[in-house]
Amino acid sequence: MRLVRAVIMQIRLTLEYDGTDFKGWQIQPDQRTVQGELQARLEQLYGAPVPVTASGRTDAGVHALGQVVNFTPTRDISLDRLQHALNGMLPPDVAVKSADYVGPDFHARFDAQRRHYFYCIRHNKQPIGRHYAWYMRGELDLNAIKRASKILIGQHDFTSFCVAAKERENRVCQVYTCDWQRQGDELLFYISGNRFLRAMVRSIVGTLVEMGRGARPAESMHDILGARNRQSAGESAPAQGLFLERVIYDDELP
Amino acid sequence: MRLVRAVIMQIRLTLEYDGTDFKGWQIQPDQRTVQGELQARLEQLYGAPVPVTASGRTDAGVHALGQVVNFTPTRDISLDRLQHALNGMLPPDVAVKSADYVGPDFHARFDAQRRHYFYCIRHNKQPIGRHYAWYMRGELDLNAIKRASKILIGQHDFTSFCVAAKERENRVCQVYTCDWQRQGDELLFYISGNRFLRAMVRSIVGTLVEMGRGARPAESMHDILGARNRQSAGESAPAQGLFLERVIYDDELP
Repeated sequence: MRLVRAVIMQIRLTLEYDGTDFKGWQIQPDQRTVQGELQARLEQLYGAPVPVTASGRTDAGVHALGQVVNFTPTRDISLDRLQHALNGMLPPDVAVKSADYVGPDFHARFDAQRRHYFYCIRHNKQPIGRHYAWYMRGELDLNAIKRASKILIGQHDFTSFCVAAKERENRVCQVYTCDWQRQGDELLFYISGNRFLRAMVRSIVGTLVEMGRGARPAESMHDILGARNRQSAGESAPAQGLFLERVIYDDELP
Repeated sequence: MRLVRAVIMQIRLTLEYDGTDFKGWQIQPDQRTVQGELQARLEQLYGAPVPVTASGRTDAGVHALGQVVNFTPTRDISLDRLQHALNGMLPPDVAVKSADYVGPDFHARFDAQRRHYFYCIRHNKQPIGRHYAWYMRGELDLNAIKRASKILIGQHDFTSFCVAAKERENRVCQVYTCDWQRQGDELLFYISGNRFLRAMVRSIVGTLVEMGRGARPAESMHDILGARNRQSAGESAPAQGLFLERVIYDDELP
């Protein structure tokens, strides 16, 4: 039984990380990356290379509360022991929040049904937690931002919000929720969708902020989407305010 | 009028800082300290050295949400401009939360009526915000901790919780509140008193944690206080979980 499970099952991990000191998720030579740190520890534990697949890459400086990865274990280690051992071995800025078994066909990227991100903006200079927010002087017109955000809900070609897309890549995404909330001194942007293109959330936030400042009308969001051209949208917001909050799979859909 | 105010009034600033990268509050040669950063910027602004007095020192790594300082301005700069200019000049880990005028006799340390601290403990490895909490494996007996905490309320000689006290120093402090709260995944310790000795809150937290782990009975808190000897208490908790939350003056007492 133990052998069978070790051969045919995969393990899914949910990770939290502080992106501040990482060059993003994806492993790269001579760079500190989350995937690099994780795979190094897994190789120590399992005594053999253990490649992992993530729900998606996060850019340098982007944080995660619920990044999901899968891998095929090369020997049997209980989930509790695995989580405990990894948390002891991983540096303080990465943690395994949960571990479970998934089937041999599970794929953290292809099987993800919904991805939830949030972005945090602060209008006051606050040293505590400054690595987790974009500090911006001057208030924003939240009504304008909310109107423009609503336009993004639904299925659209998001080429205008995509950095460095490949020529033939599919850039149609379904956005399920896209809204803003004030929480104390912070302004939080929540967005969920079936998939996100490279730097898409940050480009959206940057563009919405320009609308909140009155530099563009909220209704121009229609034209920006229609242009299918990165130049038509605004600057990308800085990485440090962005969190990959949660990735939802078939078995977790309501 | 402007001249009169400049001569006889002082300015009080309330500061927030992230203690992670500071060698504490107090200015020291060749060390990055909060007082050092602040006085350097004040000297730039006023064109002359501007010594400041704080409500108290915070140790290396300790954070503040409401440290209070006073100084005598050498020329007239409006409070709004002062706060705005300082926040632009100070590094991201120090901020001026408010500025107001106080009388010529105001003294941030001697006039402080109450000081409020809190300390944050986490039982789960959480990368986000890890510089603002003590991460500790294993649960604590919160009932025991609360019983022991109650013993500290009132007027006591806190020599047992004081690091490096001078021989004749007065070590009697009045503790007004001393309690614990669970908040999500965090365990928060709130303590307020008229004054605190060097490393007192951290020694108290470290000792209470030993009681929560069952290493000492809660009721031994009486004996620890009575011993008036630092050796009788537990280890100091790490600095990173401690926040100077607020300092209250006569004009703010209810």
